[in-house]
Amino acid sequence: MNTVLSTKPAAGTLRRVEEVTAPHVEDGLTSRLAELRLWIAADLVDVDAALASLEPGDTPMHGAARHLLDLGGKRLRPLCVALAARAGSGFDRAARDLAVAAELVHSATLLHDDVVDLGDRRRGAPTSRVIYGNIASIYAGDWLLVEALRRIRSTGHLDLLDRALDTLDQLLGAEALQLALRGTVPARSSYFEVVEGKTASLFRWAMAAGARAGRLDAPAAEAMERYGRLVGVAFQVMDDVLDVAGDASVVGKSLFGDLREGKITYPLLLAVERDAVFGQWLRGVVADASVHVDEAIASRVGAALRDTGAVADARALARSLSEEALGCLEVVPPGRARDALSDVAAALVDRRK
Amino acid sequence: MNTVLSTKPAAGTLRRVEEVTAPHVEDGLTSRLAELRLWIAADLVDVDAALASLEPGDTPMHGAARHLLDLGGKRLRPLCVALAARAGSGFDRAARDLAVAAELVHSATLLHDDVVDLGDRRRGAPTSRVIYGNIASIYAGDWLLVEALRRIRSTGHLDLLDRALDTLDQLLGAEALQLALRGTVPARSSYFEVVEGKTASLFRWAMAAGARAGRLDAPAAEAMERYGRLVGVAFQVMDDVLDVAGDASVVGKSLFGDLREGKITYPLLLAVERDAVFGQWLRGVVADASVHVDEAIASRVGAALRDTGAVADARALARSLSEEALGCLEVVPPGRARDALSDVAAALVDRRK
Repeated sequence: MNTVLSTKPAAGTLRRVEEVTAPHVEDGLTSRLAELRLWIAADLVDVDAALASLEPGDTPMHGAARHLLDLGGKRLRPLCVALAARAGSGFDRAARDLAVAAELVHSATLLHDDVVDLGDRRRGAPTSRVIYGNIASIYAGDWLLVEALRRIRSTGHLDLLDRALDTLDQLLGAEALQLALRGTVPARSSYFEVVEGKTASLFRWAMAAGARAGRLDAPAAEAMERYGRLVGVAFQVMDDVLDVAGDASVVGKSLFGDLREGKITYPLLLAVERDAVFGQWLRGVVADASVHVDEAIASRVGAALRDTGAVADARALARSLSEEALGCLEVVPPGRARDALSDVAAALVDRRK
Repeated sequence: MNTVLSTKPAAGTLRRVEEVTAPHVEDGLTSRLAELRLWIAADLVDVDAALASLEPGDTPMHGAARHLLDLGGKRLRPLCVALAARAGSGFDRAARDLAVAAELVHSATLLHDDVVDLGDRRRGAPTSRVIYGNIASIYAGDWLLVEALRRIRSTGHLDLLDRALDTLDQLLGAEALQLALRGTVPARSSYFEVVEGKTASLFRWAMAAGARAGRLDAPAAEAMERYGRLVGVAFQVMDDVLDVAGDASVVGKSLFGDLREGKITYPLLLAVERDAVFGQWLRGVVADASVHVDEAIASRVGAALRDTGAVADARALARSLSEEALGCLEVVPPGRARDALSDVAAALVDRRK
């Protein structure tokens, strides 16, 4: 019996894809974010303290919300708010509330996503729905959304409240579109509509919120938003790359997780566009909900990704978006915050998890 | 074979309970609301038109939301907004947006409730989750919440926005508490906490919103809110009465539906308080998720309800709350709207569905 193969059927093929496409990738995000964290530690401690001081109810709903928040995560969205605010007048109480709100909205979407995708693991632990149930997780998501909006409202920045509601609308529209597209190979335009709505919109809002709290002038604030949007798309494209070409032990979830859920990632979309025969075969695979992504399927997908250069080109897109994001920072006041935002943009496309 | 008995095991017992406790009940709500509707028809047509003009997306999420909204329903919450506004300066555009928001929040909770309770039928049709799936219904509920908040925000009444967020917080806290209490016989205080949060809070908000849009003075606005809260509790207690003592063919759902979902209604709570042996037995029934509410169980519950006078006393509570609500209207400017609110309060406790 080959236990390793049977529990991780795709690992062999995919490690080869990874080796071919990105032989010397450094885990830049982790080390650079660690440096950043040191500088901005007090801000993030404030955010974590505020997250920990949410109303402590003892129902399964409260438990589900608390479980996810306590697991931590990268806190990238609060980091965006904090850095944008620090590029201006600083990280004050309003900025903290907005940073907390960004993380709460993100957490709400994770809680609902795990119910939708029947996700069992997140952040190295069982998901809230496994421990507290689907129902508690649904209500917990609703609750965190309401808590986020209350915090945004409490800052008095009504424009940010309006934009948060617009962002939620866009986010739900994207979730709905993704759901409608499940089991199909979407058009490139639909793929980017989902990414813009599900990921980029909240990064964009986080940067707008930080810029507003930090009293940046209009050109700098607009540049921050463009940065947020670009970094958000780059982040998602890299997530997609890691799903098909990452190291499962580093990424923390199994490879081809998206494909298993019937979702088409950007590298697969490229491979389908470039290889019609593979495209036709893959359409059949994703249309059949009962198909199990086994070694044979993983092997064929891995070969198509390699032969079409899809993974390399997906990385190239992420890099180009990251460079465009760096360009946005030119009109932002120079200083440590701007340097940190540069590092974040560069590190996001140079990560392994 | 006794087909009638096997498909409606509890009907015989419960019809007797109904006959004993309320022999000459008129279906007052239906006829009085019909009169009301005639007067206030244009307002409700405005509300329905606004509900129908929600962004028309073609995803399952949009379909799930549209399906529920198109089925109509009593539109009691928009009616509350309209009548409160008409007791003052009238039903203007802001009042309409607030009325729409109240119905959207209510619809959002129904969409999520049906997922939580695995509900198959609502308003005489299959539920959205049956047609479009649980996932689409979850997102649809989220979406309608966001749409509701956007409309409230658009009126510029920030105090109502704050109170809507507080109301949602209370509503979710109550859902969470109800979930935590499932499978138990709750304390009376917990029962009322759930009712205040799940039902009364939104009626209260609807009256506050109408009063604000209609520019009522503070004493009248406060009286309207008290009215909303009292009518909300009365409405729920009557819902509970109808669940155990209604006519299934009129109510439109099967009797003992709440008990089947592990929820304890107010008449049952009274019966448990008054008959310790029955209480102990019922605790065992609700604690066992696998128990099917059959004729034997229905018969014992029916007997306890009759012997303890629980149904009659639950009706009496609803009537007393309704009278208290009527008393609130004394400080409201006299006129057709106030008369209509009196009718609504009286009719709510005199309904059969």
